Amino acid sequence: MQTVKNKIIIHEVGLRDGLQNEKQIVSLEKKQHWLEMLFAARLPMIQVGSFVHPDKVPQMADTDRLFAELNASGKKPKNVILSALVLNEKGLERGLACGVDMFCMGVSASNTHSLKNTGMSTAEAVSRIIPMAKKALAEGKKVQVSVQSAFGCGFEGRVPEQTVLDIVKQYLDAGLLSISLADTAGYAYPTQVMELFGRIQELDKNVECACHFHDTFGAGIVNCYAALQSGVTVFETAFGNLGGCPFTKIGSGNVCTEDLVYLFQREGFSGLPDLEILLQLSKDVALELNRELSGRLLKAGIPAIVKE
Amino acid sequence: MQTVKNKIIIHEVGLRDGLQNEKQIVSLEKKQHWLEMLFAARLPMIQVGSFVHPDKVPQMADTDRLFAELNASGKKPKNVILSALVLNEKGLERGLACGVDMFCMGVSASNTHSLKNTGMSTAEAVSRIIPMAKKALAEGKKVQVSVQSAFGCGFEGRVPEQTVLDIVKQYLDAGLLSISLADTAGYAYPTQVMELFGRIQELDKNVECACHFHDTFGAGIVNCYAALQSGVTVFETAFGNLGGCPFTKIGSGNVCTEDLVYLFQREGFSGLPDLEILLQLSKDVALELNRELSGRLLKAGIPAIVKE
Repeated sequence: MQTVKNKIIIHEVGLRDGLQNEKQIVSLEKKQHWLEMLFAARLPMIQVGSFVHPDKVPQMADTDRLFAELNASGKKPKNVILSALVLNEKGLERGLACGVDMFCMGVSASNTHSLKNTGMSTAEAVSRIIPMAKKALAEGKKVQVSVQSAFGCGFEGRVPEQTVLDIVKQYLDAGLLSISLADTAGYAYPTQVMELFGRIQELDKNVECACHFHDTFGAGIVNCYAALQSGVTVFETAFGNLGGCPFTKIGSGNVCTEDLVYLFQREGFSGLPDLEILLQLSKDVALELNRELSGRLLKAGIPAIVKE
Repeated sequence: MQTVKNKIIIHEVGLRDGLQNEKQIVSLEKKQHWLEMLFAARLPMIQVGSFVHPDKVPQMADTDRLFAELNASGKKPKNVILSALVLNEKGLERGLACGVDMFCMGVSASNTHSLKNTGMSTAEAVSRIIPMAKKALAEGKKVQVSVQSAFGCGFEGRVPEQTVLDIVKQYLDAGLLSISLADTAGYAYPTQVMELFGRIQELDKNVECACHFHDTFGAGIVNCYAALQSGVTVFETAFGNLGGCPFTKIGSGNVCTEDLVYLFQREGFSGLPDLEILLQLSKDVALELNRELSGRLLKAGIPAIVKE
């Protein structure tokens, strides 16, 4: 059942999932400039950063200030949801203190990946995340819970579908209806995507599904398309194809925001972010990071045909 | 109606559509080495080169010799179809003389592109190509006829679906049943792909459809997937993501062979080419051309999960 044509939400995670993997620390002012561009480009949902220990991920050390200053300045557009990733209760507290709209948190379906990434087993992580999620909801915040390595793991290989569904069921039983599946290793393929999201929607018809694919093996866009066919409404992507997870075996890149927006535009979806501003942003990011980014539109430009 | 699981044919066009766009002229010996790797990798269909004027496309000047020596040496595996691109009667004669198995020829659905590429209007090109195709068939050869710019044109923009179907109908009326649609400009999107190939198969249920997508705007793989859903059986791709058309407005890259083979393997298709040898070939090509190629598996390697 394909998503209706005006219901797609692009969740821009470049500032977090992109920048957390860059050696270079981007300044607060530069991030603020990029946020303003994302507002201008009409991104409906933007992940500003994560609340983690500044020693572990110094690239994210300014997340508290970014939120605080956005809320104080009044520069945040009313219809934009600003999200942040949290790993533990301390991160949640920091986020509540500086005005996050939506908390993103999750666990890995791969026990090995979970231990490497967080020091906790999957089961421990679930038992910790659910109370955090409930607390955030109780504070009137939006919450999205995720399952990472949902389609396979660089360490464990195949991840059984039932493992993912067991975690999702625990989320749903706790009243958590915004659920994201992340293809941390980049192993997903379309049939698997449709099968898994289909099963999730059988568990609860009120679930709001999100997907987070990596383009490591070239399947990022086709997996998004398969997710679209399966009723997924939220797509986590990164400008310029930035990003990946530093704790997986193989580095990878998120699906490129502007490349996916282009595809959805060609497919006839409306209410999408502004491609020209997005491209300008990615060019600016490439300059700032002083390296070539691998997005396709970044190299080719926006074809005139999108205006027809 | 999805293609049955053992019926996919990868038509490797890197030696032609890839190399014709490279400034560097690759030696005969090097091409012969790459051909042997393609044989070892079990590619069922390989486009060895094109028969064009050596002054116009010097990269293709050795095509006659390649075919002649392959046929003389007995090195060509029995179950491999060697194809070549021809633009005119002279090219066809050259190909018949040196033992081509399958002739590929076509026209552009965009009159502007046709004039720039060949000096002929679309209508002129069709009236010239069809007799050539019939002659090749009469000589006992396989023939594939194509429609380029089938999904849009860098010069004209939108190409009406009916324009493409009118050309296809002329092909079918002439008894030409192997038909390829080429997305020269890279503008195709999945719904359009499924619509167009669906309409073609309504015209004649015996048609064998091929697709040739470019990854210019990141939609190459998802378009292949859409084509697969539409009963397309032949996929024209290039190792290492090489190629494009020198006469379009925007340079582009073919869909990467190894990235598509990876996807089809994950989707459960059998009888596919050997990924490891393909990757070795692309690495060798990157070394020879002395530049980084943009295939995903080339950067990431083959994930262990493909062996599960």
